Formats: sequence, C-alpha cells, structure tokens
Amino acid sequence: MERDNIQAMSGYTWGEQPDSKTVIKLNTNENPYPPSPRVAKTLAEISADMLRVYPPPQADELRDFLAGLHNLDRENFLVVNGGDELLRLLFTTFLNAGEAFGMSEPSYSLYPVLAQINDSPVVRINLETDWSLPRDFSQRLNNEGVKLACIVSPHAPSGSLVNMDILSRVVSEFKGVILIDEAYIDFVDPALRHDSTRLVKAFDNLVILRSLSKGYSLAGLRAGYAIAPAHLIKPMLTKTRDSYNINTISQTLALEALKDQEYAQNTWQKVRQSRRALRKQLISRGFVVPPSQANFLLAEVPDKCEHSAAQLLATLRKHKILVRHFDTPVLEDKLRISIGTEEQNAMLLRALDQIGLT
Amino acid sequence: MERDNIQAMSGYTWGEQPDSKTVIKLNTNENPYPPSPRVAKTLAEISADMLRVYPPPQADELRDFLAGLHNLDRENFLVVNGGDELLRLLFTTFLNAGEAFGMSEPSYSLYPVLAQINDSPVVRINLETDWSLPRDFSQRLNNEGVKLACIVSPHAPSGSLVNMDILSRVVSEFKGVILIDEAYIDFVDPALRHDSTRLVKAFDNLVILRSLSKGYSLAGLRAGYAIAPAHLIKPMLTKTRDSYNINTISQTLALEALKDQEYAQNTWQKVRQSRRALRKQLISRGFVVPPSQANFLLAEVPDKCEHSAAQLLATLRKHKILVRHFDTPVLEDKLRISIGTEEQNAMLLRALDQIGLT
Repeated sequence: MERDNIQAMSGYTWGEQPDSKTVIKLNTNENPYPPSPRVAKTLAEISADMLRVYPPPQADELRDFLAGLHNLDRENFLVVNGGDELLRLLFTTFLNAGEAFGMSEPSYSLYPVLAQINDSPVVRINLETDWSLPRDFSQRLNNEGVKLACIVSPHAPSGSLVNMDILSRVVSEFKGVILIDEAYIDFVDPALRHDSTRLVKAFDNLVILRSLSKGYSLAGLRAGYAIAPAHLIKPMLTKTRDSYNINTISQTLALEALKDQEYAQNTWQKVRQSRRALRKQLISRGFVVPPSQANFLLAEVPDKCEHSAAQLLATLRKHKILVRHFDTPVLEDKLRISIGTEEQNAMLLRALDQIGLT
Repeated sequence: MERDNIQAMSGYTWGEQPDSKTVIKLNTNENPYPPSPRVAKTLAEISADMLRVYPPPQADELRDFLAGLHNLDRENFLVVNGGDELLRLLFTTFLNAGEAFGMSEPSYSLYPVLAQINDSPVVRINLETDWSLPRDFSQRLNNEGVKLACIVSPHAPSGSLVNMDILSRVVSEFKGVILIDEAYIDFVDPALRHDSTRLVKAFDNLVILRSLSKGYSLAGLRAGYAIAPAHLIKPMLTKTRDSYNINTISQTLALEALKDQEYAQNTWQKVRQSRRALRKQLISRGFVVPPSQANFLLAEVPDKCEHSAAQLLATLRKHKILVRHFDTPVLEDKLRISIGTEEQNAMLLRALDQIGLT
C-alpha cells in the first residue's frame, strides 16, 4: 500500500550496532572517549518528574547557548534529533517532490535515500581522484536544475576537508539551498583555522549541519543543530519540524556537553594524535590512506594483499573488530576505519599483522 | 526559498509550555501524576557512557516487549519519537504529494498541517452534533479519492470514544490506509472492554497510534508506537524513518514505564475518578460537558456567562491556571480542560467561582 517510490527503494543501510561490549567498534565513527563528566553528573541528577510535561518546544535555552558559542543569534539555530533529522527537513522544506537533488559521489549514503523518499532525481558529481570537489561543481548542479545540494566536509568516507575558498565559491555559485554537512568538523586540525560559520552571514542559501554524536561522544543521545540565516531556519522551526522533536533529557544533556568545551576539545586532540599515528602505521603496512581531517581513515587495501576489502572486513570481525565497507565501484577496495583509543588502534594493527596482508 | 506550500502555510500551534512550576497546567493533556518509580530508578542508574555509541536502530527490545504486551508479533510494532513522528511517517510513506487526506472535523489540529506539508488537499467530514462519526464517513472519503485518513479515538477535543462496531465498519469500508490515533486510549473505562488491537489481524489497512506521553506520564520523553500489520510497519521501519529515531535513554525508560502496568493503570483510574467528579462540578456550574473517555473535558461555557471562552481562558491565566481554547466555529465557545490532580481540579473550580460565571 506504500507509494510506488517507497516500494521501489531499498532504504538506508546503517552500520552494525552490536550488543556486545567485547567488540572493538571502529565501524560507525563514534568518539572512543566517553562524554564529558558534566553530562554524567547532570544525568544522575535529572528528575523523572520533569518528563511528565512536554519539552521546551523550540529548545530555546540550547539555541541561546549556541548563539553565544558561535557568535550568532538565536534565530540562526535549529536543534534537531540527530543530524539525520536536519537532512530530512531540508528535503521537506526546500525541495518539491520530483525536483532534483545534488551531491558529490561518493558521499553519505543517506542522501540518495532521502532523495528517493522525495521522488527526486539525484545529480551525482564525481569527486576528483584526490577527493576534492571539481571546479565546476555548482555550475553543473545549476545546469541540471538542482534546487538542493549537500556537501559533506570533512568528506565521508575519505576525511578530506573542503577549504574555505572552495566552500565560499561553491555556495556563492550554487543557485539553490546548499548544506555543508559538518558532522566531523570537530576533528579538523585547529592550526587550519577553518571556520565555515562566518559564511552564514555572507550567503542567504547556506545551511551548516553540526552534530554532537561524534565531537561530544553523544551518538546515543541524538542531538545536532543547524546554523543558517534566519529565513532558512524559520520554516523548519515553525512549520516542517515535529513540534517536540527533542526530548527534555536530550536538551539538558546536550547543553551540558556543549558547555564543557575543554573536555570535548581534549578528546578531539587525542583523536587527531591517534589518527596521525594510525595512518602512519597503516601506510607502513602497504595501505593507501589519504590524509584525513575526520575521526576515521579510508584505507585502500594493498594491491599485494590476498584479501579483498570485504574479505578483510570479515576476517577482522572474527578478531572482534568491526570496520566499515561500502560496496560501490570507487570504494569496494577500501575500508573505513574509525579512530579508536590508542589501545583499540593497537589491537587493530595487531589483528592485521596476525591476518597477514600478503 | 522554501517550497510554495510551505511558504503559504502557517504551521502547528502548540499549547503553551511555561517554564514556571507555579502554574497549574491543564492545557496540554499531560498526566497529572509523575512517571512510574521504576522510570526514576532506572534514570538514576543510566550510565552516560552508553550514550557514546548509537542507539539500537530499531528498538527491538522494546518491540519485543510490546509484542508480548499486546499479544502480537515484533513485526507489528514501530517505536517512534512521540506520536507526531508516526503521523508524519504515514504521510511520507503512504500518500503521494497532492493526494487527498481525510479526517473528521474537528480533530487534532496537527493533521491538516501535515497535509499542507505534503501538498495534499484535506477532506473534512463534520462530526455529528454528539461528536460521533457520520454513518457514511468512509464512503465519503472514498468518493473523494482519499488515500490516507486519521480518526482520533477517544476523540480530541471532545473525549468521545468511537465504539468497536463503528471502528470496524469504518476501517473495512475505507479503501486507503487509516490511522486510529489512540493517544488517549489508556483513560477509557475498562468496563467497556474496548480493544482495537484485535482489528490489526483482521484488516490490512489499519495503523493504531499509541503514546506514552499521557498514559505513562512521559510527554517530555517523546515515545510512542504504531501497531499495524507487518506490511505497513516494514516500509516505515526500514525506509522512511530516520535511522536512529529513538535515543538510547528513551528506549530504556519507555521499556521501564511499560513494564510497570500496575502503576500506570493506577494513575488512569485516578484520572477517571477525577474526570467524573470534575464533569459533575462543571455541569453544576452551567457548563455543557459531553461524557469523556480521555483525560480532558470539553466544556462549553454557559450561555448566561458574561465571558466568552477566550475571555475565560485569559482570566483563568491570571489565576495561574492554563486551559486550552481553539478558535474555530464549532469550538470557539468551549474550553478544553485537562484532568489534573484532585487538588488542581479543586483550584480550577475555586477560580471559576471567584471569577463568577454570571
């Protein structure tokens, strides 16, 4: 009885979420460190009685804090039940059924699923071999009549960062609404002084997605937010969003996590150090691994290796280590490996050495 | 930059959610009693570390418990982030843009908002003056080409229950997918032996909505579920739903609340007793109040009263009592009053007596 396009589509394939605590989980890009102690403290103090009544519908206390954090106004923020909600809301709000959606190929595999739900054709622009956006990305989207586009930066699954000059050009040239999906932005090297939020004041068609899932170790909480000009936030906040999209506990704990910038930044720094070390170790074993500004590495299995990437994933699973594989032409010979703790990364390397790559 | 239909619509108006704890909140149908002590106990024990990883994507533990509770199968259940999510998913999954949606008039004011987002015309069938569905409800929807319809039972805002015979007939006669919105079902008199869940095995086009917001005192948690034939659950579960729609804490606490049936049923019984008493008191003051099977009463302001319903609401607010008013032709002379604790109801009556109705 479902719509024809829903019948025809196959849905998003999420990464495995095992019950087991003994598995080393390097497959869905969680932060390997626990959330801030402030989150734990507040969680222990929350009264169940506050759940009796509806949550603050617009999460205004959180929006006000975000305004201070990013030096913008409350009207520039929308709090969402995980970044996926914002992606969905962009389709619902800005793209009529059947209108074209644009993205780079490869990128987050949820995007085309949302386009299918919206009955929208997908215009896919192949990335260059170094994972950068082609110079004419926006023109090609405009030529195809694309009204909504998503860029993920740092890019998933490569970890490549789109620099500020290119971001500005892409946004200024694109004629529709464009999302920069910054789910992994917290892991960018601060020495790069990368800050796309200042583009929000310069462009009227830009939405930035931020997530607390990775940077703040709160994947289980479902909390993220949009940063955008007020005229793009407003229809999502007041019309297309589910009225009480973020529950009371999530609002409370997200605020605590965001307040403890020092703790979060410390986890980011540790992840960056581990990322550098793990990349070096993987390269020394023959993997081809582009530099990553995210909390994962995309590792191309060495030519000499007798295992395909899919086989290597299956063998690592026997060692109780989960990584991610995408069965597409560009990605089929690669594994995406989330950065774990030092100990977890060492166990991954030990497992690879036991498996033997030649 | 939003779609034309989004630009043209005005969005759902939610009931006021004041910060103040001193207000008597009888405006959004919350349960006046706190959630089960099991919820409080488990909340105090939840480890923040479990928030580091993604939630169980399909909430299977909760679905298994629901299967046992309702004597159905896991495949008959979908857990949602509040009932509103299920309503949205029905549109996304079963109604193409522009296809007609059907509802009774009046009913939950969110329905036409969701239809507007979907660019769907709304076929409104007026209820009879006793708030019952007209005999030819389904035929008229079929004649108008309606593909998705919602009935709320017990009805909001009247509290009128659609009995099992009529429900069966409406569902069997309707040619599209039909939702019975049972957000208030827990407050139905058990002597009526009303149980629509057995219709799920008999009809292939029926979805039942249940919510933990009212019956389990968890409006702030955002948790509800669908009961439906597996072929209707599956596309929502695997295709149109946000992948991690229910966070880990919500899944955990919802399960605890559902396990404590004895506690919940005790709150329902207290609400029913208060409902009977409050109705009697309001009628004795000249209000016209139809019998209600929900946790609210729809009270028509006495003819002799010098205040309009809207004025009475404003005056009650000065007494720090919030109730709800809907500015539509059928409802403009009525107030919807949630059942509070005995003490709160007494304060409402005292305030009405102070205001004076003549």
